[in-house]
Amino acid sequence: MTDVIKTISEVKSRLDDYRRQAGKKVALVPTMGFFHVGHLSLMRTARQDCGLVVVSIFVNPAQFAPTEDLEAYPRDLARDLELAGRENIDLVFSPDPAEMYPEGFDTYIDPSHINDTLCGQGRPGHFRGVATIVAKLFNIISPDRAYFGQKDAQQAAVIRRMVKDLDYDIDIRVCPIVREFDGLAMSSRNAYLTADERAQAPVLHQALLAAREAVAHGERDASKIRRLMRRTIGQNYLVEFEYARIVDPETMESVAVLDREALAAVAATVGKARLIDNLMIAP
Amino acid sequence: MTDVIKTISEVKSRLDDYRRQAGKKVALVPTMGFFHVGHLSLMRTARQDCGLVVVSIFVNPAQFAPTEDLEAYPRDLARDLELAGRENIDLVFSPDPAEMYPEGFDTYIDPSHINDTLCGQGRPGHFRGVATIVAKLFNIISPDRAYFGQKDAQQAAVIRRMVKDLDYDIDIRVCPIVREFDGLAMSSRNAYLTADERAQAPVLHQALLAAREAVAHGERDASKIRRLMRRTIGQNYLVEFEYARIVDPETMESVAVLDREALAAVAATVGKARLIDNLMIAP
Repeated sequence: MTDVIKTISEVKSRLDDYRRQAGKKVALVPTMGFFHVGHLSLMRTARQDCGLVVVSIFVNPAQFAPTEDLEAYPRDLARDLELAGRENIDLVFSPDPAEMYPEGFDTYIDPSHINDTLCGQGRPGHFRGVATIVAKLFNIISPDRAYFGQKDAQQAAVIRRMVKDLDYDIDIRVCPIVREFDGLAMSSRNAYLTADERAQAPVLHQALLAAREAVAHGERDASKIRRLMRRTIGQNYLVEFEYARIVDPETMESVAVLDREALAAVAATVGKARLIDNLMIAP
Repeated sequence: MTDVIKTISEVKSRLDDYRRQAGKKVALVPTMGFFHVGHLSLMRTARQDCGLVVVSIFVNPAQFAPTEDLEAYPRDLARDLELAGRENIDLVFSPDPAEMYPEGFDTYIDPSHINDTLCGQGRPGHFRGVATIVAKLFNIISPDRAYFGQKDAQQAAVIRRMVKDLDYDIDIRVCPIVREFDGLAMSSRNAYLTADERAQAPVLHQALLAAREAVAHGERDASKIRRLMRRTIGQNYLVEFEYARIVDPETMESVAVLDREALAAVAATVGKARLIDNLMIAP
């Protein structure tokens, strides 16, 4: 079973010991816990790449708006530790919110323009919270590499931008989306879905496949592809459409014409679950 | 003569070499150059404390508003290098703006409430720029200690708060204000003053001394002390009053009654120079 550490000072001193001992490369896999196969795939990649793998489990209050599902977000630390142990994770860092945001906390990382689109519009303050907690974890753990999932493509872009802008000497690895048998992207929030909702949820992936198909048949007009995705998602009465966009995978800015590889990204609410998905499409 | 380094990658690799060689403590003295005795006192303290002293010289565009004196800010790199050499500084890091803010730069450190008072009101965006460049320098240099001047008391408070909030493992040292013979706090912006303005500029310090004197005589009402400071500064026709406050030295929040040690802080514009000064006062 993997060790769990709850305080910043202890995790820092443990990591210093490891580094001194072995000159090992340190990997960080930041998570909010309630592991699914997507998380495990990040851990396995990190385990293959690095001598020391740290997984953080922290449901980060700063990235939830007051109206969102912070309280309801699924948690199961015992199960997560069991799974981390099976993946031979060296350290799990699982601090309390008061350890990460003590009284008087007053400094945030603000991703600027990249925040003005996609999930940044529907979730104001979300990426500020994400960037802040990730910078804190980077400063605490000082990893050589950090692993993120492609499902949260905008998050990965925000982090890459932050690493570049703030001069972190950390190699950011973004791992492919892991999907259920029917194409639904793995997400801890899938646990919110009723059976009926679960049956309709793969429509996000189907919309992305339809976009790819249209491009394969020669469509280059992003607005037409967006409408196609929107129409596909809108056919399902339990699914509330939020956005469908074609964007630059680095800046997340909208692309008008598909003259190079771009990211198709969708978001919708299904019951209590806000779901997102994306797919690279190339002309 | 001290080495100057202009690129981030070179300064990082040089510092890695030093650290491997010697296990030396690394000091950072972040400056905007045009050294005066205040800067030299920071360097001397750092030199006494640490095996390796890095001074950064960078007039940081992000901390100047469009209406401010970025272009006019005094610069003399040759003289600064000469002075740094005499202080036995190991490395001077003096990047170009494009090295620090390449195209597409989009991530800022946002000091939140501490920004709403004193210089944060008169200089919107200033502390965001300060926090961002200091975080970048911390990530590039990875110092064990960093040295700041007490003259910029709110800046020091912003940096201390940032270090705590973002979990930087860096010891922040704040060194005393160095003053001219007549009490004027040393500042690179004093170079803007005409002879007449220079003669009136010590009024900021005089206002602070008057505040301390009043407190020594039993005054505890911060609003009365503020009025006294304002009156003292207002007597001088070349001096345009900006603020006079009594604040908590950590949070920079206003104090109503002087029941414990507090910071008296003043700002005024004298000719082209915006000047600030402060003094701890204890009941």
